[in-house]
Amino acid sequence: MKFARIGEAGREIPVALAEDHYVDLSALTDDIDGAFLSQPLEDVAAMVRSGGLPRIPREGQRVGAPIARPSAVVCVGMNYAAHAAESGAKPPEDLVVFLKTPNTVTGPEEELRIPPGSERTDWEVELGVVIGRRASYLGSPEEALGHVAGYTLVNDVSEREWQLERSGGQWGKGKSFPGFSPVGPWLVTADEVDPGDLRLRSWVNGAPRQDSRTSDMIFDVAQIVWRLSQFLVLEPGDLVMTGTPEGVALSGRFPYLRPGDVVEVAIDGLGRQRQAVR
Amino acid sequence: MKFARIGEAGREIPVALAEDHYVDLSALTDDIDGAFLSQPLEDVAAMVRSGGLPRIPREGQRVGAPIARPSAVVCVGMNYAAHAAESGAKPPEDLVVFLKTPNTVTGPEEELRIPPGSERTDWEVELGVVIGRRASYLGSPEEALGHVAGYTLVNDVSEREWQLERSGGQWGKGKSFPGFSPVGPWLVTADEVDPGDLRLRSWVNGAPRQDSRTSDMIFDVAQIVWRLSQFLVLEPGDLVMTGTPEGVALSGRFPYLRPGDVVEVAIDGLGRQRQAVR
Repeated sequence: MKFARIGEAGREIPVALAEDHYVDLSALTDDIDGAFLSQPLEDVAAMVRSGGLPRIPREGQRVGAPIARPSAVVCVGMNYAAHAAESGAKPPEDLVVFLKTPNTVTGPEEELRIPPGSERTDWEVELGVVIGRRASYLGSPEEALGHVAGYTLVNDVSEREWQLERSGGQWGKGKSFPGFSPVGPWLVTADEVDPGDLRLRSWVNGAPRQDSRTSDMIFDVAQIVWRLSQFLVLEPGDLVMTGTPEGVALSGRFPYLRPGDVVEVAIDGLGRQRQAVR
Repeated sequence: MKFARIGEAGREIPVALAEDHYVDLSALTDDIDGAFLSQPLEDVAAMVRSGGLPRIPREGQRVGAPIARPSAVVCVGMNYAAHAAESGAKPPEDLVVFLKTPNTVTGPEEELRIPPGSERTDWEVELGVVIGRRASYLGSPEEALGHVAGYTLVNDVSEREWQLERSGGQWGKGKSFPGFSPVGPWLVTADEVDPGDLRLRSWVNGAPRQDSRTSDMIFDVAQIVWRLSQFLVLEPGDLVMTGTPEGVALSGRFPYLRPGDVVEVAIDGLGRQRQAVR
C-alpha cells in the first residue's frame, strides 16, 4: 500500500493511494505518524479495499511529506563506495552517522531555497526507511527488517561549505537548513518493496546526475537498522536516510545548484520529486 | 520562576516551584512544552502568585526532565578552551555542532546505564538553553537572548569509543544511547539567570571532576543561539547544550564510569543531578 499526506502545508490529511484516486484515512487516524505505523497495516489495507472510506480526486492536490514530523532523522553517510571516493574518502568500516533536525522535513514539490550566501548547495537522492516498531539493541540484522514500516524517497540536501569547511568536521552543520529534507511523495509499505535492488536517480534541469542501485550500498537496510539500534533507539515514525550514490556536485563533475535550477530525484516504485531552486 | 515536571516517568505533570511546595500548572497547560514556553510567562507567574492553583508537597515526588521532549537537542562541542585542549583539539574558530536524538532526554535522578560492552562512558556538565521563540536567521547576537525561555542543567553523557573510534569522526554516534541526556531538575526562566557567569561542577563518587564558569565559554549563549539560527531553525521547547568544561574522563586524568559509581553535576542556581551508574 502507498500512503501520502495531501493538502495545505502543516494541515495535510492522511490518505492511501488507489488506482485513480486517494482514499481519505482521516476516519482511521489523524496522521501518518508513529502510532499509526506501529499498528498492523493489513487492517488499514482491508478498510481501504472495502470501499467504505471517502474518495478524493488525485488532481490539483498539494502533496506533503508522507509522514508526520519524525522524532529523529538519522542519516548514514558514505554508504556507496563510489560516492565515498568522489568525496575524497575511503569506504567506511562501520556506519558513519549524523542527524538532521526533524523540522527540515518538507514535501517533495516545495521550492528549495538556497541559504543566504551559499554557493555550494548540493542534491543527494536517497532511499528513506520509515520505522514501524521501536528498535533498540536488536540481536541481529535478520530481525531488523521487521522494524521497518516502509520506504520513501528523500533528497538529503546539503550545503557543502557549512558541512565541510565551517563545521570543525561535524557534517550536520550543513544539513539542517530550512527545507533541506524533501520527503515523498509516498510511503510504500515494506511488503511492496525490495530495498536491496532499487534504481536511484537524480537530474538537474533534466540532465542526469546520479544513477545507481541500492545493491551498491556498503551497509544494506537490515545492517543499517541493526547497527543503529546498537547506539540509539529508533522509534515508530522515525526516518533513516541510507546514504547517496555518486554523482553529486561535491564530486567536482557538476556545478552546484543556482536559483532557477530544477532538481529532480526518483527511485523506481517510490515516485519522483521536483524542486524549483530559489 | 522555576518550572519542573513531577510524577511517574512518561506521565509527569507540569509544576512551578514555590518556597516549600510545588504549584500544579495542569489547569494552565498539559506540559512544559514549546506552546507553553512561547506564551508570556509573566501571566503564568501571576497565576502562581495568586495562590489559586493547587499545591503539591515537595517530599517524595519523582522529578522528571523539566521540559517535554524537544523537537531537537542541539549540542555545541569544544566550547571551553581547556576542554578542547584536554581532548587533543584546538579551540574552534566557529561553532562545532552535533545533535542528540530527543529520546535521550530523561530525568535528573534516573539510573545511568552503561551501554553493553562500553568501557569509556563519560560525564559532561553543561548549561542547557531552552528556546522560547522560533529562531531563524537572527540578525545579531543581541537579538538572540530574546528567543531564550530559560536555562537548565544537563549531563551530556558520552560514550567515547563510539564517539571517536567507531564513528568515522561524526561524534553523534556516541551521544544518543538510551538515557544519555539527563536534564533538570528545573527550567529557570531567563529573567532569573545570568548565563554569562555560572559555576558548573561535576563529581564522581563525591570526588570533584569539573569546576569551571560559563564565563570561560568560547561562544557565549547569545553567540550560540545567533550562530545556530544561521543554519537551522530553533523551535520553542528545543534544547541547546552549550558545551562542557575540562575535567572529564577523556582527559586521561580520571577513570571512566563503572557500575556502582555515582555521578553528580550542578550549576549554581539551576540545581543538582545525581545518577547511579548501572
